[in-house]
Amino acid sequence: MSTDSTPPATGLLFEEARSAEIVAASFRGTPDARLRQIMTSLVSHLHAFVKDVRLTPEEWEAGIRFLTETGQMCDETRQEFILLSDTLGVSMLVESLAHRVHGELTEATVEGPFHVIASPRRELGDDINVAGEPGERCVVTGRVVDAEGGPVRGASVDVWQANAEGFYDVQKPDEMGHGDLRGMFTADDDGRYWFRTIVPSHYPIPADGPVGRMLRRTDRHEWRPAHIHFEVSSPGLRTVTTHIFVEGSPYLDSDTVFGVKRSLVREFRLVDDEDAAAAYGVPNPFRSVEFVAVLDREEPQ
Amino acid sequence: MSTDSTPPATGLLFEEARSAEIVAASFRGTPDARLRQIMTSLVSHLHAFVKDVRLTPEEWEAGIRFLTETGQMCDETRQEFILLSDTLGVSMLVESLAHRVHGELTEATVEGPFHVIASPRRELGDDINVAGEPGERCVVTGRVVDAEGGPVRGASVDVWQANAEGFYDVQKPDEMGHGDLRGMFTADDDGRYWFRTIVPSHYPIPADGPVGRMLRRTDRHEWRPAHIHFEVSSPGLRTVTTHIFVEGSPYLDSDTVFGVKRSLVREFRLVDDEDAAAAYGVPNPFRSVEFVAVLDREEPQ
Repeated sequence: MSTDSTPPATGLLFEEARSAEIVAASFRGTPDARLRQIMTSLVSHLHAFVKDVRLTPEEWEAGIRFLTETGQMCDETRQEFILLSDTLGVSMLVESLAHRVHGELTEATVEGPFHVIASPRRELGDDINVAGEPGERCVVTGRVVDAEGGPVRGASVDVWQANAEGFYDVQKPDEMGHGDLRGMFTADDDGRYWFRTIVPSHYPIPADGPVGRMLRRTDRHEWRPAHIHFEVSSPGLRTVTTHIFVEGSPYLDSDTVFGVKRSLVREFRLVDDEDAAAAYGVPNPFRSVEFVAVLDREEPQ
Repeated sequence: MSTDSTPPATGLLFEEARSAEIVAASFRGTPDARLRQIMTSLVSHLHAFVKDVRLTPEEWEAGIRFLTETGQMCDETRQEFILLSDTLGVSMLVESLAHRVHGELTEATVEGPFHVIASPRRELGDDINVAGEPGERCVVTGRVVDAEGGPVRGASVDVWQANAEGFYDVQKPDEMGHGDLRGMFTADDDGRYWFRTIVPSHYPIPADGPVGRMLRRTDRHEWRPAHIHFEVSSPGLRTVTTHIFVEGSPYLDSDTVFGVKRSLVREFRLVDDEDAAAAYGVPNPFRSVEFVAVLDREEPQ
């Protein structure tokens, strides 16, 4: 028997001391049990916040204005509420709760707003810097393995990154074209993948809206440390959406969206080796980074 | 010495268990101490909510969509975020925290979205039903007194209300004109005021937006019980923004914005008295309600 037959709430006369309880009672008749749980918890925490700081009518008005402007900043290419969620650490928390890992499994991080176009299919070893952007040349090598260390043959390795000035192709379509610094690779029979690129730069999130104002008023910066995005998947295994971060990048310990986990920081090693450079088809010296993605078994449904 | 010199946050690598603490640390450098307190508390309660319900990425996406649409529903005449705040009981909580009263002092309630035009100045005894709307005729009488019961001579009594179909003038400008069922009165030397009107109806809040969808999905209704708005003020005393509610109105115990306090419910008494009707200039029988507003001394600044 479901709880859908809960009688409608009555007696909702307002009292400050019981405010959360009174409002939560208005949601007692919510047919969907999960939605009921979410609304009840939301009301409880929201009222606790208002009481905790004893929010004034003027502050409440400022909050209403901020939320309204945040919604009105959104369009097809700008999602200011996601930025707000990112800069309050909520996106990262949701991602972490959804993707709890143990042992050697690769940790997840935020997907970010730039995975908006499909990465072009490329061959192992391809250079994803198709527009010939300036920057330090870099070879990325790695493997996709399962929790037991076994190779995941034919795994999909989707990568996207900013250029050496911190821009994604979709931000500079005239100069970078469509698909620059993106690639969809297929791991070989041993789970190995490799490609050529340039070292990405750290960059600021869009800061010309309400979220940017919030960051300035709280003396926070708007920067993310340098990173390459990965989405690694294979049938039967849990997809992991993550980054590798460039060790030594500025803002590594103050990412404005809290995306950095220690396990995801990688040395982009300077290699001075003519033979290796020739073998990879890059000028000597070059940077080299390795990333082994360890995927969990799919959760039973 | 201010705390402005707090060193900038460092070491903000994300960890699920300490997520609120890590994000709060990013606000340590906020120059304004009150804003710092608000952001710290907000982050703490927001993360507690996400963890409490273990919000999934799909639910988070639905939340982002809801907030975005709520912002985009707003324009000059529609404030959907205030509606959201109202229907989650937040507006009422903020109002109550700002206007804590004791003893016989008149309690506050939400101002609502219809106090958007200035009420026309009227003489004591005037009929605010200037458009001649159909409805039960009603005489409102009362006094404005201070906490000791002394008359507040010349107090301003601003009233506004819906008609017998639940509409304010600004919602039906063609039929009701501008200023119908509104009035700005000045109490006499004994603090007394009186005016003629019609009994207002209960009415629904605007429900064609995201907030309306939220109410329907949670099996809540969109109605407010019948009421007359008052804003009573006088120099040196605290302004009170409140309503009187019509005893016996539908939805009195389930106001969708949680505006009802028991002390604000009034009997709109049926009077069958030819002499009284003639004295007030209304047809017999008529309704009569009394409201004594008790104002506190202004808080010391």
